[in-house]
Amino acid sequence: MIRAGIIGASGYAGAEVARLLVRHPEAEVIWYGSRSNTGSRFHSTYGNFFDIIDDDFSDDNIAELAEKADVIFTATPQGYLAGVLNEDLLKKAKFIDLSADYRIKDVNIYEKWYKIEHKSPEFIKEAVYGLCEINRGLINKDTRLIANPGCYTTCSILTAYPLVKEGLIDPATLIVDAKSGTSGAGRGAKVTNLFCEVNESIKPYSIASHRHTPEIEEQLTYAAGEDVLINFTPHLVPMMRGILSTEYASLKKKADGTYPTKDEIRAAYEKYYKDEFFIRLLPDGVIPETKWVEGSNFVDIGFVIDERTHRVIMVGALDNLVKGAAGQAVQNMNILFGLDEKTGIDMVPMYP
Amino acid sequence: MIRAGIIGASGYAGAEVARLLVRHPEAEVIWYGSRSNTGSRFHSTYGNFFDIIDDDFSDDNIAELAEKADVIFTATPQGYLAGVLNEDLLKKAKFIDLSADYRIKDVNIYEKWYKIEHKSPEFIKEAVYGLCEINRGLINKDTRLIANPGCYTTCSILTAYPLVKEGLIDPATLIVDAKSGTSGAGRGAKVTNLFCEVNESIKPYSIASHRHTPEIEEQLTYAAGEDVLINFTPHLVPMMRGILSTEYASLKKKADGTYPTKDEIRAAYEKYYKDEFFIRLLPDGVIPETKWVEGSNFVDIGFVIDERTHRVIMVGALDNLVKGAAGQAVQNMNILFGLDEKTGIDMVPMYP
Amino acid sequence: MIRAGIIGASGYAGAEVARLLVRHPEAEVIWYGSRSNTGSRFHSTYGNFFDIIDDDFSDDNIAELAEKADVIFTATPQGYLAGVLNEDLLKKAKFIDLSADYRIKDVNIYEKWYKIEHKSPEFIKEAVYGLCEINRGLINKDTRLIANPGCYTTCSILTAYPLVKEGLIDPATLIVDAKSGTSGAGRGAKVTNLFCEVNESIKPYSIASHRHTPEIEEQLTYAAGEDVLINFTPHLVPMMRGILSTEYASLKKKADGTYPTKDEIRAAYEKYYKDEFFIRLLPDGVIPETKWVEGSNFVDIGFVIDERTHRVIMVGALDNLVKGAAGQAVQNMNILFGLDEKTGIDMVPMYP
Amino acid sequence: MIRAGIIGASGYAGAEVARLLVRHPEAEVIWYGSRSNTGSRFHSTYGNFFDIIDDDFSDDNIAELAEKADVIFTATPQGYLAGVLNEDLLKKAKFIDLSADYRIKDVNIYEKWYKIEHKSPEFIKEAVYGLCEINRGLINKDTRLIANPGCYTTCSILTAYPLVKEGLIDPATLIVDAKSGTSGAGRGAKVTNLFCEVNESIKPYSIASHRHTPEIEEQLTYAAGEDVLINFTPHLVPMMRGILSTEYASLKKKADGTYPTKDEIRAAYEKYYKDEFFIRLLPDGVIPETKWVEGSNFVDIGFVIDERTHRVIMVGALDNLVKGAAGQAVQNMNILFGLDEKTGIDMVPMYP
Repeated sequence: MIRAGIIGASGYAGAEVARLLVRHPEAEVIWYGSRSNTGSRFHSTYGNFFDIIDDDFSDDNIAELAEKADVIFTATPQGYLAGVLNEDLLKKAKFIDLSADYRIKDVNIYEKWYKIEHKSPEFIKEAVYGLCEINRGLINKDTRLIANPGCYTTCSILTAYPLVKEGLIDPATLIVDAKSGTSGAGRGAKVTNLFCEVNESIKPYSIASHRHTPEIEEQLTYAAGEDVLINFTPHLVPMMRGILSTEYASLKKKADGTYPTKDEIRAAYEKYYKDEFFIRLLPDGVIPETKWVEGSNFVDIGFVIDERTHRVIMVGALDNLVKGAAGQAVQNMNILFGLDEKTGIDMVPMYP
Repeated sequence: MIRAGIIGASGYAGAEVARLLVRHPEAEVIWYGSRSNTGSRFHSTYGNFFDIIDDDFSDDNIAELAEKADVIFTATPQGYLAGVLNEDLLKKAKFIDLSADYRIKDVNIYEKWYKIEHKSPEFIKEAVYGLCEINRGLINKDTRLIANPGCYTTCSILTAYPLVKEGLIDPATLIVDAKSGTSGAGRGAKVTNLFCEVNESIKPYSIASHRHTPEIEEQLTYAAGEDVLINFTPHLVPMMRGILSTEYASLKKKADGTYPTKDEIRAAYEKYYKDEFFIRLLPDGVIPETKWVEGSNFVDIGFVIDERTHRVIMVGALDNLVKGAAGQAVQNMNILFGLDEKTGIDMVPMYP
Repeated sequence: MIRAGIIGASGYAGAEVARLLVRHPEAEVIWYGSRSNTGSRFHSTYGNFFDIIDDDFSDDNIAELAEKADVIFTATPQGYLAGVLNEDLLKKAKFIDLSADYRIKDVNIYEKWYKIEHKSPEFIKEAVYGLCEINRGLINKDTRLIANPGCYTTCSILTAYPLVKEGLIDPATLIVDAKSGTSGAGRGAKVTNLFCEVNESIKPYSIASHRHTPEIEEQLTYAAGEDVLINFTPHLVPMMRGILSTEYASLKKKADGTYPTKDEIRAAYEKYYKDEFFIRLLPDGVIPETKWVEGSNFVDIGFVIDERTHRVIMVGALDNLVKGAAGQAVQNMNILFGLDEKTGIDMVPMYP
Repeated sequence: MIRAGIIGASGYAGAEVARLLVRHPEAEVIWYGSRSNTGSRFHSTYGNFFDIIDDDFSDDNIAELAEKADVIFTATPQGYLAGVLNEDLLKKAKFIDLSADYRIKDVNIYEKWYKIEHKSPEFIKEAVYGLCEINRGLINKDTRLIANPGCYTTCSILTAYPLVKEGLIDPATLIVDAKSGTSGAGRGAKVTNLFCEVNESIKPYSIASHRHTPEIEEQLTYAAGEDVLINFTPHLVPMMRGILSTEYASLKKKADGTYPTKDEIRAAYEKYYKDEFFIRLLPDGVIPETKWVEGSNFVDIGFVIDERTHRVIMVGALDNLVKGAAGQAVQNMNILFGLDEKTGIDMVPMYP
């Protein structure tokens, strides 16, 4: 059994890691860390775990945890792991970080968008960006540190990746209009996340300044082989879970003056995704709805070509707490430890 | 592997049976029956099943199905199974009926409340009322027909059962104020179930006339050893899943003139439920919320004594599509086939 | 023009007073008081008021306000007004208090249920309990202090009042199962009121201990002419506005051994409410839904008699922020100042 | 008093016209027409109108209605008014059509996108496209027919209009990502609009094929003075009311090689909207939320410039049933009859 610890287990993402691991056949949770809840019963914070988890919250003593654990999930605020990580810890346990600390290779970009100093940039290079379907090959038993991708970014990158990689679209025209459920905002007590504020409303936020922007750009830059700048606009939707990315890009005219066809676009998606269990390329004319992936680790992708404007509209959907956070983190754990990637995370989406 | 067929697989309850069986280690679904959807792809109706179920909907030819299946789940309108069931079918397959056709032992009461003629009353006596925690002992390998309890009834009965059985409350004073999510109303295209009609509203319906009333009364009559008449008031709540039963009853004065204490009430619950995996008796002062059981087969129960009025307020919560329908049906299947009762249905509730 | 001030204008109830007064033809708001928001623009807290209210929040200097205002609305935490009110203030302005400070005549009961000391019990006797349809006659131009009723209480009392008053039901059997939207919990930043915590869930709270209990009991005691003790159970519903009270009581057997009929029950309601603009007694068989009153000052009432149990089930619905708070407060202001009671508050409910 | 009739009064938009007119000081409704509900009480379909409207639904005999009415609102399916309108009717009453029948000047485009034959193209030229803030000057006492704009279109056009008109953006790059509450889908009994299907989900639909596309394009073509083709993607959001348009366009480089500044963009908006009561240009950095306009006739507009990509992101919000349908229809009526444009429709948005 893999001994797993969670730091930040009282947040939604941390608790979702717990939900997945508690039924995982090859792992057990030995540490539910929470600085703010230390000593209280886990199920007094999350009533859904009555009779399932009888442990108390531990503190966030990561040094002690590293002595006991094979793998540590950090579902913590930006800067936490960067502030405590060191060579000694990395020798003792593997780290899967759900924060952004090691996602962006250029520390200057990280510091500019996150407006905090990075305390351990020396580990950035070593960290593998754990977007499993793209970077699976970079993860092996010697990998010590995985930067688990963000929720918006997982959805936004996977939706556009094959078309960028294959040069079918002009990346300079890429616009990502994304929508998220409210669990993405976390469990902090803020007026803006109250039921009465969120319900019966939709609003954009952090326009042209959201911190997932450079993360998407970096990965698509790798795919494009050239610098990619995008517009990324997140919206808050009155639902609990789910991210939908609606992405717009101009098709690149081919040498013969025509534009890529529906079949060519589909072929590009299939080239990269056809054997991917967790990516479901929907049939022609079927467009994702977040409800279809709720509670699961799937990413659903569909697209439409507009013959009038020569743009392709790509749409991706996932559950932000599963494939957008805890599910992908466990998927990374499975890869790290040589398990079948689906182990413990092949839930059927719940409907309705 | 148990070969299972579903008739009525295009409704919410039928599709939930599919969701549970598709990951059940000891069963496989060989028939997704739907009169209205015959021939179309299952996942074109339920997008969540893309890449998971690739079958088409079959028709509702139950005779053909009975030749192939070990067990048949009928998630069908009232009267359907009663209209087609016969000795021949019962010899070929086991039936777990999610409708009310065989739940009520007195056919006159059934016909009065349901306002339809019962076409096969000869099987009512044989049917086991599949409230697993109470009637598990009545189910064995020779059982042919299980009447799977209703959603409101499962919640309402289990919440009051120990106190009625132990004579701690006066059953003549029992009032059940129940609240349900909208999936309980089914997937039919009705104006009253539109988002804009249900959202931002709560309403009672079928006051003093809801058809789950006699079902609750019959089971509590067995427990009480005397005729029980109750008030049962269901309410529609703007949520998808979940039933909450808030139940009121006067405590019975004891011989010494005092009333049962909190400890005595708790002891009664523990007497019946302490070893029940799917019933979670919450700690003192903790009252159920439907969110804590969402997506799971659990029933959560809590209570408060009002010293001023000498009443006990009992509260129960479950997910109407799981423990209130498909989950309990699979639990019954597990019992019928001698499996561990939890097999395939020990999901951790999803939160948020 | 009536010059009105609001203390506590940054809460939902205070802002709703503002919403009503800003279009009131006979009143103008001269003071939007908020201790926490002093100095900031009102519409930076409530974006809906852009271009409608350009004032800043004032502080809570009630002495200064009393110099300028004809009437002061206090939508403040329990204990605030009791802590500052004095004879001098009462000489300068009229007070309509949306808190519970002066609602309960017995200060011991207030202190027991609210667990705070009452700092100015000398004004309790003078305060008029402003349940307009019952106590309108007690309000006149000399009235200085109105205790505006609670949201649950307005709904619960009005729904049962005529039957209690006419002796048609046994008040000792009265059970009130109430359901409320989340705005009733206020705009404080609490985890329990987050969208992800409230949505897709229903839960009871404060069972047998909610502070609106003695307020309901006191008023029904006046109506019954005998002490009334009830069970009152509030529930939190995933909606923003609306209160529904489902109330159960045994019909009193008449001298001839029969029970009150539907017509007799209806006659009792009509005796008290037939000329009330804001109380809508629904036709036979029509039961209230909170959606039908949303955004309005109406209370809808319906009932069903259960011939089997000889109970009547009464149902009332209102918008907790309007008739349950700000609307009734303005109604009280209209009465106080001799205006048509409907002035400025005869909004048609919004649907959907 | 203006005598108004409504055809299609049982739909959400028609009932909203009723809600506005019933409190309108200069109008009275003399006809609530509904083919499907003829003869039943209006408030039996819309419980919110108990004690407010006591009329029955009339039929859709528009000839009889035209004899009695000064103005007729048609909130009817596409093709209805085009199928019955004639010179005789137009001589007797004024028509405000909430359908799309007379919105698009080129009948071929109408027939192509709506896939129905237009039965009275002879009136298209005469019809005024009733986008009040743009076309107010085209409406006078002789105007007989107003094509009331669509919900998405009102929002999408007004949000981009000043920047297109002033040549600050390249209209060929315009992308409109729009989100709507579910009331926009009407009150028809469809599975896709059930609470359980809509809730906890967001989905795009009619990508590159939605029928509001050519309506937006036509109006922006007038503004641009050149043909405009856009991408328009509507999304269904789990809320009742509200439309949000997030619009992307590249800023046009100026002669000096620089791009328009924030102040220049703002100046363009102010040039057209600064005296418009119903358009609220939000302060710098404040972005619209649909909740801020709920229940009102306001359109809120905000914008952000992305200096990295030289795009402007414009955001508009309105209530689809008010400014997006019934409110604008009444605004048009007010203009037609020479009333103050705000009469009866200056509601403060409801919050929460």
